[in-house]
Amino acid sequence: MTASAGSLDTSPIVLKANLAPGVVKLTLNRPDQYNPLSEQMLSSLQREIDEVAADNEIKVLILAATGKAFCAGHDLKEMRARPDQQYYEDLFSRCSHMMLTLARMPQIVIAQVQGMATAAGCQLVANADLAVTVDTARFAVSGINLGLFCSTPSVPLSRAVSRKRAFEMLTTGEFIDAHTAEVYGLVNRVVSAEKLDDTVDALARTIAGKPADALRLGKALFYRQLNMPLSEAYQAAGQAMADNMLFPDTLEGVDAFIEKRDPRWK
Amino acid sequence: MTASAGSLDTSPIVLKANLAPGVVKLTLNRPDQYNPLSEQMLSSLQREIDEVAADNEIKVLILAATGKAFCAGHDLKEMRARPDQQYYEDLFSRCSHMMLTLARMPQIVIAQVQGMATAAGCQLVANADLAVTVDTARFAVSGINLGLFCSTPSVPLSRAVSRKRAFEMLTTGEFIDAHTAEVYGLVNRVVSAEKLDDTVDALARTIAGKPADALRLGKALFYRQLNMPLSEAYQAAGQAMADNMLFPDTLEGVDAFIEKRDPRWK
Amino acid sequence: MTASAGSLDTSPIVLKANLAPGVVKLTLNRPDQYNPLSEQMLSSLQREIDEVAADNEIKVLILAATGKAFCAGHDLKEMRARPDQQYYEDLFSRCSHMMLTLARMPQIVIAQVQGMATAAGCQLVANADLAVTVDTARFAVSGINLGLFCSTPSVPLSRAVSRKRAFEMLTTGEFIDAHTAEVYGLVNRVVSAEKLDDTVDALARTIAGKPADALRLGKALFYRQLNMPLSEAYQAAGQAMADNMLFPDTLEGVDAFIEKRDPRWK
Repeated sequence: MTASAGSLDTSPIVLKANLAPGVVKLTLNRPDQYNPLSEQMLSSLQREIDEVAADNEIKVLILAATGKAFCAGHDLKEMRARPDQQYYEDLFSRCSHMMLTLARMPQIVIAQVQGMATAAGCQLVANADLAVTVDTARFAVSGINLGLFCSTPSVPLSRAVSRKRAFEMLTTGEFIDAHTAEVYGLVNRVVSAEKLDDTVDALARTIAGKPADALRLGKALFYRQLNMPLSEAYQAAGQAMADNMLFPDTLEGVDAFIEKRDPRWK
Repeated sequence: MTASAGSLDTSPIVLKANLAPGVVKLTLNRPDQYNPLSEQMLSSLQREIDEVAADNEIKVLILAATGKAFCAGHDLKEMRARPDQQYYEDLFSRCSHMMLTLARMPQIVIAQVQGMATAAGCQLVANADLAVTVDTARFAVSGINLGLFCSTPSVPLSRAVSRKRAFEMLTTGEFIDAHTAEVYGLVNRVVSAEKLDDTVDALARTIAGKPADALRLGKALFYRQLNMPLSEAYQAAGQAMADNMLFPDTLEGVDAFIEKRDPRWK
Repeated sequence: MTASAGSLDTSPIVLKANLAPGVVKLTLNRPDQYNPLSEQMLSSLQREIDEVAADNEIKVLILAATGKAFCAGHDLKEMRARPDQQYYEDLFSRCSHMMLTLARMPQIVIAQVQGMATAAGCQLVANADLAVTVDTARFAVSGINLGLFCSTPSVPLSRAVSRKRAFEMLTTGEFIDAHTAEVYGLVNRVVSAEKLDDTVDALARTIAGKPADALRLGKALFYRQLNMPLSEAYQAAGQAMADNMLFPDTLEGVDAFIEKRDPRWK
């Protein structure tokens, strides 16, 4: 959470870069205010994410940030200025829509966490498909310190880490360090600051080296089957496997495997 | 599980203490019998818990115990004396009702585990919102050793720790130590015996320092959204956040944050 | 995944051994091809598993393998030879049926992993109730490397380990080592090669020392309650406990406990 509504910063609020074939990086760029999810940030981010989601050439989306903090959550000053139930419902609905877009888009989403992630900033990390963080980063869902329980962050947090750990973070508002975040399963990897870019780049390129349609099918199936009873999940997954086998890139991939050569994918 | 039905002990079976503003401690007090969840214990505990649940001044409930064991589960001698299906169904229904009361009450429930927790005693730990334990404590769901699979303990255990670990505990009946319980996520913190009281007190005071209505709303939302599909969970959480923002204590908390001062909560 | 359809090996494709009273071991026995889940393997395994499932004398089923690899998943050469949607749907349906049989059979299923487990081989490990592995084993859901997302393996994997870890394995196709598999909760224990047999035998005998009907009731209840809301799960578990209390072996087990002697089970 940040208290810095309004900003005279005229640089782009979200930076977009093509990092490698099939890999796009979106960077939150309001470092002085700890990259709050202000209305402007949410709108810009949603627009950029929608554009990425619609681009069949992109396989991996990296979510990064500039400055000391990854993201400090909602812009409290902006929120405080409009104490209105309907306004708040709309705001959280827009933020949740962005989180759901990240979960549903065909691209694999990697959070690249270069600094502190709090409240809805921690939610962004939990909500991403994968996360890599510097060893100095810290994580908290600290709204309770102001009397605002981090309800929306609790949604992906409680699905990423075990129950008692999520509950402790939510009710104490205290920070956990990067190593603890890895032990909890909130992030996949912890590296030193100088290795963050290279680690994320390598992970992104590894994934972007796989066929797009298999990644798309796989990500959708993965999240879809999570809440199903076991037999229903197997039914959905078996159907997906059968479909997947007949993708042209997959037939070529299997041929290459049998012939012990590299696949020639389009 | 214990085999010690009946007791001539006339001291209160559950001790109640006001530990700090907003913090109540209930202590199981049949140490010689390892604090079994006998009919008398269940009745007393339910009555005390209901009283705490109804008290808007209380934010944190600590569940503690006296003696060497935290709780050894149901009173087998008492149970064995009445081999009757209906009686058993009623008994487990009462015990489950108590567990559900703990999960649904607005207060944050911390298990303070000073010794061995087995069967429904381990269930109490798993079922609590948070748990702190001494490093010498051990945990087991050992009913299977008598041919009584710990079905009801499996409910919160399988929601607190990962599946294969819960299943191993349930089918082998073997103990895990405190450190393992922390690694599994069954407890939040492990400390030495001399630090147990202080650690739990500090955790309870930290939580009791937050506004009651935000804790109440947050705990209810947390458990409610766990089984929902992602979009439905975000919908419920966004609604809760919007409601929460307009709580008087929250508006004051946000003001204090913006003005960089301590909040003045009622 | 393996590329070795067809085989002139005339030894039994699945070995069956009675290891101890109540303990049966089924061993995948196509070591040169890394024990692929070929049509022949699936048929043989299903037949053997069905036979075990129907045998009330058997309490524990160990799934083991010969050679360097535990199981390398489906037989890709065999699959590639029939690029037909209906054939693939049938194949995955049969494989899923086997996995569901393992989850639903009354016996406790232990995967004894002596080497690499990939794709549907890793699925076998994740799908087992318990797993013990050598410290040199490695695990991957590597189908994505060929453009075939491991959708069916993702079903038990995403239920055994935390979400971001499962997702990383599925989208990178990379191996994790045995220690990491234990940290993730994919396996219960990691031991040296020379201790694998003894460790699994001891675990199997421990479990086989419990009454069969309690194990049967417990396993069924455990998986059934996992997806239920908390109150419904407690309701189902309480009913199971009441039923379980009146099993003759359980009444004897409780009597023995009260009388501080060993139970005399039939």
